[in-house]
Amino acid sequence: MNKPTSQDTFDTPKVTTGPLPGSRRVYTAPAAAPDLKVPHREIDLHPTAIEPPVRVYDCSGPYSDADAVIDVENGLPQTRTRWVLERGGVVSYDGREPTPLDNGGATGKYLAREFPVRHKPLKADGTGPVTQYQFAKAGIVTKEMIYAAERENLGRVRALDGAADRIADGESFGAEIPEFVTPEFVRDEIARGRAIIPANINHGELEPMVIGRNFLVKINANIGNSAVASSVEEEVEKMVWAIRWGGDTVMDLSTGKNIHNTREWILRNSPVPIGTVPIYQALEKVNGIAEDLTWEVFRDTLIEQAEQGVDYFTIHAGVRLAYVPLTANRVTGIVSRGGSIMAKWCLAHHKESFLYEHFEDICDIMAAYDVSFSLGDGLRPGSIADANDAAQFAELETLGELTQIAWKKGCQVMIEGPGHVPMHKIKANMDKQLEVCGEAPFYTLGPLTTDIAPGYDHITSAIGAAMIGWFGTAMLCYVTPKEHLGLPDRDDVKTGVVTYKIAAHAADLAKGHPAAKLRDDAMSRARFEFRWADQFNIGLDPETAQDFHDQTLPKEAHKVAHFCSMCGPKFCSMKISQDIRDEYGEARAPNLSPDEAKKGMEEKSSGPKAERSDAVDPSEIEAGMKAKAEEFREKGGEVYLETGE
Amino acid sequence: MNKPTSQDTFDTPKVTTGPLPGSRRVYTAPAAAPDLKVPHREIDLHPTAIEPPVRVYDCSGPYSDADAVIDVENGLPQTRTRWVLERGGVVSYDGREPTPLDNGGATGKYLAREFPVRHKPLKADGTGPVTQYQFAKAGIVTKEMIYAAERENLGRVRALDGAADRIADGESFGAEIPEFVTPEFVRDEIARGRAIIPANINHGELEPMVIGRNFLVKINANIGNSAVASSVEEEVEKMVWAIRWGGDTVMDLSTGKNIHNTREWILRNSPVPIGTVPIYQALEKVNGIAEDLTWEVFRDTLIEQAEQGVDYFTIHAGVRLAYVPLTANRVTGIVSRGGSIMAKWCLAHHKESFLYEHFEDICDIMAAYDVSFSLGDGLRPGSIADANDAAQFAELETLGELTQIAWKKGCQVMIEGPGHVPMHKIKANMDKQLEVCGEAPFYTLGPLTTDIAPGYDHITSAIGAAMIGWFGTAMLCYVTPKEHLGLPDRDDVKTGVVTYKIAAHAADLAKGHPAAKLRDDAMSRARFEFRWADQFNIGLDPETAQDFHDQTLPKEAHKVAHFCSMCGPKFCSMKISQDIRDEYGEARAPNLSPDEAKKGMEEKSSGPKAERSDAVDPSEIEAGMKAKAEEFREKGGEVYLETGE
Repeated sequence: MNKPTSQDTFDTPKVTTGPLPGSRRVYTAPAAAPDLKVPHREIDLHPTAIEPPVRVYDCSGPYSDADAVIDVENGLPQTRTRWVLERGGVVSYDGREPTPLDNGGATGKYLAREFPVRHKPLKADGTGPVTQYQFAKAGIVTKEMIYAAERENLGRVRALDGAADRIADGESFGAEIPEFVTPEFVRDEIARGRAIIPANINHGELEPMVIGRNFLVKINANIGNSAVASSVEEEVEKMVWAIRWGGDTVMDLSTGKNIHNTREWILRNSPVPIGTVPIYQALEKVNGIAEDLTWEVFRDTLIEQAEQGVDYFTIHAGVRLAYVPLTANRVTGIVSRGGSIMAKWCLAHHKESFLYEHFEDICDIMAAYDVSFSLGDGLRPGSIADANDAAQFAELETLGELTQIAWKKGCQVMIEGPGHVPMHKIKANMDKQLEVCGEAPFYTLGPLTTDIAPGYDHITSAIGAAMIGWFGTAMLCYVTPKEHLGLPDRDDVKTGVVTYKIAAHAADLAKGHPAAKLRDDAMSRARFEFRWADQFNIGLDPETAQDFHDQTLPKEAHKVAHFCSMCGPKFCSMKISQDIRDEYGEARAPNLSPDEAKKGMEEKSSGPKAERSDAVDPSEIEAGMKAKAEEFREKGGEVYLETGE
Repeated sequence: MNKPTSQDTFDTPKVTTGPLPGSRRVYTAPAAAPDLKVPHREIDLHPTAIEPPVRVYDCSGPYSDADAVIDVENGLPQTRTRWVLERGGVVSYDGREPTPLDNGGATGKYLAREFPVRHKPLKADGTGPVTQYQFAKAGIVTKEMIYAAERENLGRVRALDGAADRIADGESFGAEIPEFVTPEFVRDEIARGRAIIPANINHGELEPMVIGRNFLVKINANIGNSAVASSVEEEVEKMVWAIRWGGDTVMDLSTGKNIHNTREWILRNSPVPIGTVPIYQALEKVNGIAEDLTWEVFRDTLIEQAEQGVDYFTIHAGVRLAYVPLTANRVTGIVSRGGSIMAKWCLAHHKESFLYEHFEDICDIMAAYDVSFSLGDGLRPGSIADANDAAQFAELETLGELTQIAWKKGCQVMIEGPGHVPMHKIKANMDKQLEVCGEAPFYTLGPLTTDIAPGYDHITSAIGAAMIGWFGTAMLCYVTPKEHLGLPDRDDVKTGVVTYKIAAHAADLAKGHPAAKLRDDAMSRARFEFRWADQFNIGLDPETAQDFHDQTLPKEAHKVAHFCSMCGPKFCSMKISQDIRDEYGEARAPNLSPDEAKKGMEEKSSGPKAERSDAVDPSEIEAGMKAKAEEFREKGGEVYLETGE
């Protein structure tokens, strides 16, 4: 019962455009490839801050660029296709002819309109490397690698004195996060299997990004229509909306009808990697009957989606026949949809999974288009009770074996992880994954740290996500407030994305990512100086922050008020702190002119905050205090700010 | 500018009453004191569950009891006053006469109506123990201890075979969580200073509860009017609302006018411990001028509030003169309101803090009424940048010294903690607190794990709260979505409380609290069996869960639908799992009749779930599988459920 989306009534998807409040999308040109325009977002601060704009990672695509012309009917420019063609090794061909079954047999008013433009697909011609993994192994630095490195550094030029400039401490649990990400570092990480750049050669609209333990923690947002709700138009806007708030990749988990056409609209308009679970569409092609699935139907689906440009596939090849009985006495059995499809197939045929049996064939297809593997955790726990059990870890070991095969075939690989795990069992998941999967990037769903809060599972899972991100997970799959209850709407998608940006950023801070703390510090200075608009804009969700502020203090004058609603105008702890600083503080770094400040941004990453010593001995200070205090009092020591209210 | 709350227009506060969906408030009588009626909540399950009701900890007070008669003008029954009187050592006296200054000089229509009933206060007469700490040290088990123990166990009778019945694993970081909490265990923990029962002898309405590392993790909700918003009526309802959703204690942080009268209305209607920060009111009495504060004004305020029945006081006695300069080069200085008041006083007078100088006098007052100390962290960090710095830890060491003094004076003590701390610096806070504060309970605000998400600080902090709760923090002070932006309204209070119940429960699970997992398992079974109403009701917020479900699947029929909105009616992973269980699962424990089930609830805590072995070897199973699979297929193996839609 997909909603009607007929050819006649289908509207061009309306997508959200324009910059975020106080922000501009800016571009830098990497030294290694000056023709690339690598995007970032800059948040302008109030002039009194005398600070350069705060530059942050930007995955929102051209939609947030005030100068970009967006034409959803044509899709985004396929800039990246030139890079693919110029390095060769690929051939353009006619591709597979779409069949009615690709859209689940939808007809008439139930068939979503085809995307207006058809592109001929590319595939490997066997003459040279095509996947990022193959290039990396061959020692070749691709433009994708240069682009991803530039993004990770926010366009900063390498600091001269790396060690002194490293402002972060942290505990990285054995990760090797560099001071500065070079294209060569990205190449090396990919060659070692520790990172991937999901980048199908047929996804020319892509702005490449890297997923790995030694890079910023990324997040994925799931969208997708289902058999019970939502339309193509909604899904395209959900994608744009999800990346606007920080989704680094988007998985299209559509089921039901119109899967093919929905995906085409999404891909042609997506600057972020798109992932899918091909078994979902294959199941639709056999009318939802799992035991009727065949290798041929699945293979056909892989090619269909690879030609469209899907960047990574979840493949549940670790759900082996012998593991299925291990789930029999679980409290919640198998909760992965893909996992249960394969379990049912295995049981019905009493055969080893065709995904496992045909794994090398799958690799060959994925290598030909550079579709990355996301090896699915079909046996992940669906409850606290089932966490870290025999079924889950048996599958994880198999995923480790499959990783080695995929690498041999030249494919990029990441590994999916749980699910529902209490806090004390989270680290074991990361440790075991690192151990058995050769350090391939881990990509986890949460995990949820308790089962008792339906309606708040973005929070139950953000706790687990932040922790496992800290421990080494490279990408966190978001969970929305509707998890276990219903399909996320636009607001839920935003809440899920922002919540997971929090988890990812908290992880970056704890790991000691060298630049992560800059944004926190910019926020804290804005707080201390009562720059309210800056506080809103530096935050992950300026609109909600301002709305909350205005609910208590609605007047425009309050945006510049030197007090907050907690203490009111008469007494304010921040003001007292400013007094203390005036009396006892070291001088702040000399205030810079905006030009100087901008220059500083290019050269160093520690911002204008003065270094401080943590080693002050209280007793040493006491001696000199009396005079100071007298002085303070004599001068009036008044810190209240009257506002005339 | 408090809102007008005149004697004439003041309405009786309207408070939320009635049980939560699907729930009943029930009472058990502890064996050690059968006259006590200890409250719990029971969630009734669908008859098909064939399970006893899920019993959960209940701090909502008589408000959720369908049979209770609530009369806000009279307050709750002062049942506990009898316990205090029957053990003696106290004297009733006329008490301090309220002055206009107690309400900040509010007059006319700005003066909130007095609470209609006046009670004469009690205080220690010096003839015997009065505080729970003094009783505990004397080897006396009080009714408060019996009551708190019964709550912690949810009224369960001790299992005969403790070890076998312990269903939880966990990592408790050295906590000593017992299988079963006895009144003697509570006494022992209090005597060792490792737990407190905040219970002013003048708070006769109190339902006692215990705070300590070896008990369930508790949460506190802050309410309070401020100089810019809210009224007495709103605050009383906020208290009732906060405990309805799970607030274990409530802090009244009112500032501005009407502090005395607001607090009286709250206390007389509060079944949970009420905490305050007396320096806030003292500051109002000196017209908001910190340097005009004196020991006499502060002392008078302590007595005023102790006579009213406040159960714990935040006392910022660790903000010593010598530590103030340590904050000078912080990014956000001093962010604690109480801390900055004392810092300003110290600087203005160049004197050691009068709280520190008069600490023994403060102890004497608090011991006379059994007001517990919450030793305030006035120098807690207000940003990631300032976490774990010299100022913070210098103060913490002083709090450790003061703890020893307070214990000598017979007082109960807990210690407040940060604040803003990145994940990798959280454990050091807990470790240092345990080390320097003699294992007195830790009570932390969050901590927030990043600064970049105003509007979502309930989430940034829930991450830190869950972790520090796991590491050993006894009570978590909630943070609402409005933190840093505005004053929380009713919805924000609920969101904050539910979020912190998640953090506390996740911590209980990870610590290995023996019974914590029961609720998760009940939820998971309800999920597996598609008992939708049970899923809503077992959760922390049944109303939101049902609302979210209904947004996607609104029809009544969907409440019993054997599918969810994610997969739709045609394919469902849970159904496949049920198939697998039917084929390979061990028998579940024999289904019990409701009566038998109820009996089981009294005797054991592990629920009807069969134990399973995690040690199954996949290869052993494969042998027997072929026949099974054939059988499965022959029988049709059909798991789809048609719903006729």
